[in-house]
Amino acid sequence: MVNQKATNVTWHDGEVSIDDRRTLLAQRGATLWFTGLSGSGKSTIAVALERALMNKKKLSYRLDGDNIRLGINKNLGFSAADRAENIRRIGEITKLFNEAGVITLASFISPYREDRDQVRRIHQEIGLTFLEIFVDCDLESAERRDPKGLYKKARAGEIKNFTGIDDPYEVPNDAEIHLVSDKMSLSEEVNFIMDYLEDLNVLS
Amino acid sequence: MVNQKATNVTWHDGEVSIDDRRTLLAQRGATLWFTGLSGSGKSTIAVALERALMNKKKLSYRLDGDNIRLGINKNLGFSAADRAENIRRIGEITKLFNEAGVITLASFISPYREDRDQVRRIHQEIGLTFLEIFVDCDLESAERRDPKGLYKKARAGEIKNFTGIDDPYEVPNDAEIHLVSDKMSLSEEVNFIMDYLEDLNVLS
Repeated sequence: MVNQKATNVTWHDGEVSIDDRRTLLAQRGATLWFTGLSGSGKSTIAVALERALMNKKKLSYRLDGDNIRLGINKNLGFSAADRAENIRRIGEITKLFNEAGVITLASFISPYREDRDQVRRIHQEIGLTFLEIFVDCDLESAERRDPKGLYKKARAGEIKNFTGIDDPYEVPNDAEIHLVSDKMSLSEEVNFIMDYLEDLNVLS
Repeated sequence: MVNQKATNVTWHDGEVSIDDRRTLLAQRGATLWFTGLSGSGKSTIAVALERALMNKKKLSYRLDGDNIRLGINKNLGFSAADRAENIRRIGEITKLFNEAGVITLASFISPYREDRDQVRRIHQEIGLTFLEIFVDCDLESAERRDPKGLYKKARAGEIKNFTGIDDPYEVPNDAEIHLVSDKMSLSEEVNFIMDYLEDLNVLS
């Protein structure tokens, strides 16, 4: 089984550190948590930001409903307990990616303040950068956009407990970044976040 | 709120691709799944491999009991159902890291073939590299090492359902890499895996 070829592999003792990762990637890990109504533009901004980061040779990864609800959280529904567990697990995953040195974008309605604050807490208690990004869009505009036709279904009673219709959205009190998505262009939003990351020395 | 500074941020349309990540990192994502008895040496090898990868400027991240059982899986115990869910969630997380371009090391006893095969399946069905690494160590040697004192507790009846004592370990049938940990030195084991990764073009 053993067919030795490499003879020049060496290692130092000790585990790979956050500083090792920072030097390798020329960036710091960070979690950018996009919260807002369905249709507010969270994912559109996250996709564009990921592209802008890649153009600057920065490694990011984006978590959203597509890769979470169909994967690790496919055994969760939309009860209050399951919604909390959904956000808890996503928060634990962003923490792991952040520790790995990745700029981690999480794009979820995450309507409850307590759930978001808990995610913030598990990052900050071990010194990881966590930024809450409130993608602020009034319900009327979000419902007019309705990119997935979900508001229509919620109004027709086909979807229950839909945030903004028959379930609350708790506005962030202390988001690091507040984007008023019907007053800013997509490029303004992306530039704003990039500047913020530069100022925090995340990109170096 | 908006305080525009950057004016030079541009992006192309479209999402960041696996090829973009490969170019940026000069590596391909891969999942290296270390399975074996408690005390077989899984984590020791994974730690040393992570160091060797970093020395070659390759980005890896290591999942183990410390960052999983205390984090995302802290609401799981050791019943058969919880063990399966434990491995299922870890497998979904390795898949995400792998997609992000990271060489992902998972170090868990993972005693059941069906659970490991399911993790393999979710990787391979979307074309991600998955390598099962069997850290093969006979029970006698593992129990003699007993680095965490767990076998002693299991023999004393203080821990129930302990793999190798009163719970089975199902040996892999088709592991890509088979390390006989009491016949190879740590550097031989690490070099063997590094060669394997080179041959698969994971490191370029």
